[in-house]
Amino acid sequence: MRKQFSLVVLTCCTASFGLFGQLVAAQSPGVVAISNYNKKNAGNIINEFTDFLAIPNVAADTAGLQKTAAFIMSMMNKRGIQKVQLLKAVTPGVAPAVYGEVMVPGAKQTLIFYAHYDGQPVNAAQWAKGLAPFEPKLFSQAIDKGGVKMAAPADGRYNNDWRIYARGASDDKAGVAAIINGYEALIKTGLLPGCNIKFFFEGEEEAGSPHLGEILQKHSALLQSDQWIMCDGPVHQSGKKQIAFGVRGDARLDLTVYASKRPLHSGHYGNWAPNPAMMLVKLLASMKDDNGRVTIKGFYDDVVPLTPSEKKALSEVPLVDEQMKEELGISTVEMKGLTLSEAINQPSLNINGIQSGNVGKQASNQIPTFATAVIDLRMVLGNDWQRQQQKVIDHIKAQGYYVTDKEPTDEERKKYAQIIQVIRKQDGYNAQRTSMSLPVVQKIIEAVQTTTTGQVVLQPTMGGSLPLFVFEKYLNAKTISVPIANHDNNQHAENENIRIGNLLEGIEMMAALMMIK
Amino acid sequence: MRKQFSLVVLTCCTASFGLFGQLVAAQSPGVVAISNYNKKNAGNIINEFTDFLAIPNVAADTAGLQKTAAFIMSMMNKRGIQKVQLLKAVTPGVAPAVYGEVMVPGAKQTLIFYAHYDGQPVNAAQWAKGLAPFEPKLFSQAIDKGGVKMAAPADGRYNNDWRIYARGASDDKAGVAAIINGYEALIKTGLLPGCNIKFFFEGEEEAGSPHLGEILQKHSALLQSDQWIMCDGPVHQSGKKQIAFGVRGDARLDLTVYASKRPLHSGHYGNWAPNPAMMLVKLLASMKDDNGRVTIKGFYDDVVPLTPSEKKALSEVPLVDEQMKEELGISTVEMKGLTLSEAINQPSLNINGIQSGNVGKQASNQIPTFATAVIDLRMVLGNDWQRQQQKVIDHIKAQGYYVTDKEPTDEERKKYAQIIQVIRKQDGYNAQRTSMSLPVVQKIIEAVQTTTTGQVVLQPTMGGSLPLFVFEKYLNAKTISVPIANHDNNQHAENENIRIGNLLEGIEMMAALMMIK
Repeated sequence: MRKQFSLVVLTCCTASFGLFGQLVAAQSPGVVAISNYNKKNAGNIINEFTDFLAIPNVAADTAGLQKTAAFIMSMMNKRGIQKVQLLKAVTPGVAPAVYGEVMVPGAKQTLIFYAHYDGQPVNAAQWAKGLAPFEPKLFSQAIDKGGVKMAAPADGRYNNDWRIYARGASDDKAGVAAIINGYEALIKTGLLPGCNIKFFFEGEEEAGSPHLGEILQKHSALLQSDQWIMCDGPVHQSGKKQIAFGVRGDARLDLTVYASKRPLHSGHYGNWAPNPAMMLVKLLASMKDDNGRVTIKGFYDDVVPLTPSEKKALSEVPLVDEQMKEELGISTVEMKGLTLSEAINQPSLNINGIQSGNVGKQASNQIPTFATAVIDLRMVLGNDWQRQQQKVIDHIKAQGYYVTDKEPTDEERKKYAQIIQVIRKQDGYNAQRTSMSLPVVQKIIEAVQTTTTGQVVLQPTMGGSLPLFVFEKYLNAKTISVPIANHDNNQHAENENIRIGNLLEGIEMMAALMMIK
Repeated sequence: MRKQFSLVVLTCCTASFGLFGQLVAAQSPGVVAISNYNKKNAGNIINEFTDFLAIPNVAADTAGLQKTAAFIMSMMNKRGIQKVQLLKAVTPGVAPAVYGEVMVPGAKQTLIFYAHYDGQPVNAAQWAKGLAPFEPKLFSQAIDKGGVKMAAPADGRYNNDWRIYARGASDDKAGVAAIINGYEALIKTGLLPGCNIKFFFEGEEEAGSPHLGEILQKHSALLQSDQWIMCDGPVHQSGKKQIAFGVRGDARLDLTVYASKRPLHSGHYGNWAPNPAMMLVKLLASMKDDNGRVTIKGFYDDVVPLTPSEKKALSEVPLVDEQMKEELGISTVEMKGLTLSEAINQPSLNINGIQSGNVGKQASNQIPTFATAVIDLRMVLGNDWQRQQQKVIDHIKAQGYYVTDKEPTDEERKKYAQIIQVIRKQDGYNAQRTSMSLPVVQKIIEAVQTTTTGQVVLQPTMGGSLPLFVFEKYLNAKTISVPIANHDNNQHAENENIRIGNLLEGIEMMAALMMIK
């Protein structure tokens, strides 16, 4: 049995918080004022937010990304944020970061707030009926819980459980909106920032941030800070706020097994001609055992163990496994014997997609010519993403495959019985973890705690990935993640959404962080 | 080593042919006359054929099938074929068969010629650039051999190696056109039919002929004959003409493995949430060993062994394995140690298609909610298609799956760790084999031999499937297949095509068969 989390209720929010933030405070008066302002102002906030969501922001759509960045600049200018500008990379044609700042006389530290404005690719056909990725729609609750489409309330009074559906609603236009509106709430309520605030909104995160390093390096003078605060990802599945001190790294491999150069009738050639789908399923099946452990040689090597304080934090993360199984409609887990928190502290291998021939009504009695799969690797501290890709490739070779990064030539087809094209996507990166014991990190934990009467969950590592290593590499900077989205936001998939309560509370959290002195 | 085929050249085409048709004859004078007529008339034949191909004929397109049937009736009426009519099923809304007949005074037997006018489903996006399934195009040779698009020749002189690309070009509008034009050539050259001829063109073959039995039963009086001659499928890969005495049966299963009810971020949940694509690949991988043999219990039971004469015929089928490997760009086969002819005399299991999540540019870092595959089973004599489906289902259960034919309920999701929906397609059927020793079969072998100076390949079983058992069941009738299409016709897939030479020689063959007395 995992140790249960015990609550200790404090009467005053100024109490000193222990490393693991288990103490519970009432909301601070400042946060209450911000909360009230947000409630009154919700209509304006959400109108602006839906206009923002209506702008397409996928990586391939340069014009859409330009419009999105321009929209953010206008949001910042409206709030009187200074030095609003685009930070371009050296490489031409790259989606720029959007920058702004607010300098506070006498401030002792500088916090820089990060979110990203680009979104994951969309396949509109997979979205639920009545939804389209860039036509934001308000629903009475989550669609899969029976939510129905609603008009915006004329009185501007929004219920916390309502949701807005659109690509980017949670990942990560919500982050951009929370940061900018957090600053507005602070100013409008007469509460002033306690520190210098910098704003940095990236435009290439979902493409793997290939030019982020360039941008950080080129504009390093402007981007000095004491701490980066990353507003991306979901809060804890228990609904509790959470701070994450690290992220998993990410890398991708695209695999394509080739067989006959032309599609064959499965009757005339079935049994005789190799079936690339069967070849690929056998190859993928060889990568995991029945307990969900990756069987690729050395896959779990290199992992840097958690420190004692990280282990303690992990043990205090509320157990949500049963709740999540119920919610997701599953009755088992992939890695047998591990909790969700434990599982995401391990490197992983996932099939994101597989395709060969056709299914359903388009299926025909054929032996396809090729079969493709996309493999996603997550790294934890110690793993090197390119080494991890190589381990998979070595495993594929050990299964008897000839590996190429091109379509096979006729010569290769003659020579090799099993041929696979492996594309090592070059946008991978490693995991990152910031120490929980830094003084500024302590202040961040305290600030988040002022916004909630509940536990603030401290996660050594988020399951998701952000290219946080880049900040260390180019700016020698530390990062910490303070996410706001509801956990059931469908980020990276169809029907992405944000819960209204999470957006509004996210604004409060950003404002509270900006009050750090 | 397999016994090599030895040629014995005869000086006269009227020589008696042995059971296995190994004897070689010059083309008969009648066939030469037909061939000359076809060459002169090729422009008209192909113009009409491309008009025919331009009519969509997929199962779901009722209007398209009606137009296709009407076009065939007009083709038949133009040639003076009698009693042209639609044979409807008892069930309403079913694509009818097209019937016609030519009665010859004093004829001693009646041959009925079969082809089907419906085509396989199409996925237009998968066709090569410049091609569309229902916009027939003429090419200078096969596209994958560098063929280029051409205009129809003004002088009506077609080269045998040119190809026409369209759905149905070979499977099986070519069969319809060959039969009708075969009759026309016979009449126009003054050579008369030697037997009564009946024409029967089915409209549901690619949908598994679900109502063929009804049609045969309802119109049994009209459909009496001494022998059905099925014009469907390809000639031998060696380019030699072939006669097939049987077909494999066919059955399909649609498999869908379910995991989380909503798509999950592969970072936040990877390692913990079950991945349905990984589950499905492990399940499919369990169905075959590395030698291409199906590992499902009892899969090869029930098979009726070939008779000594069938075994002899099989041993005389020219070996095309090395030629086919070269042509297809493969260097190995699935069932290790078996030739192509041997492999198609075994039951088979093939993945026709698999799909989960997205691949390529649409891929995103998700754990999909489900994974689907379409499995095609081929039966040989002795296998029962429903029993064969059941063996697969039993195997799936033995892997720990709960099998349902619906989407799983929340209750089922709670109860079972591994859930799969299995749709047993109801359009399956068994294999069929006609004895080679029947007198009318001997005449058919002789007639085909009059059209070629080469070997006529005699196949105990074709790899493909036709619902031939239905003819036995409802009419107690025997069937034999005399295919005409080039073997590299891409039937059932994108870029379906017919070689002009195969179409014209197919017409000759049909005419030669109609001269049987």
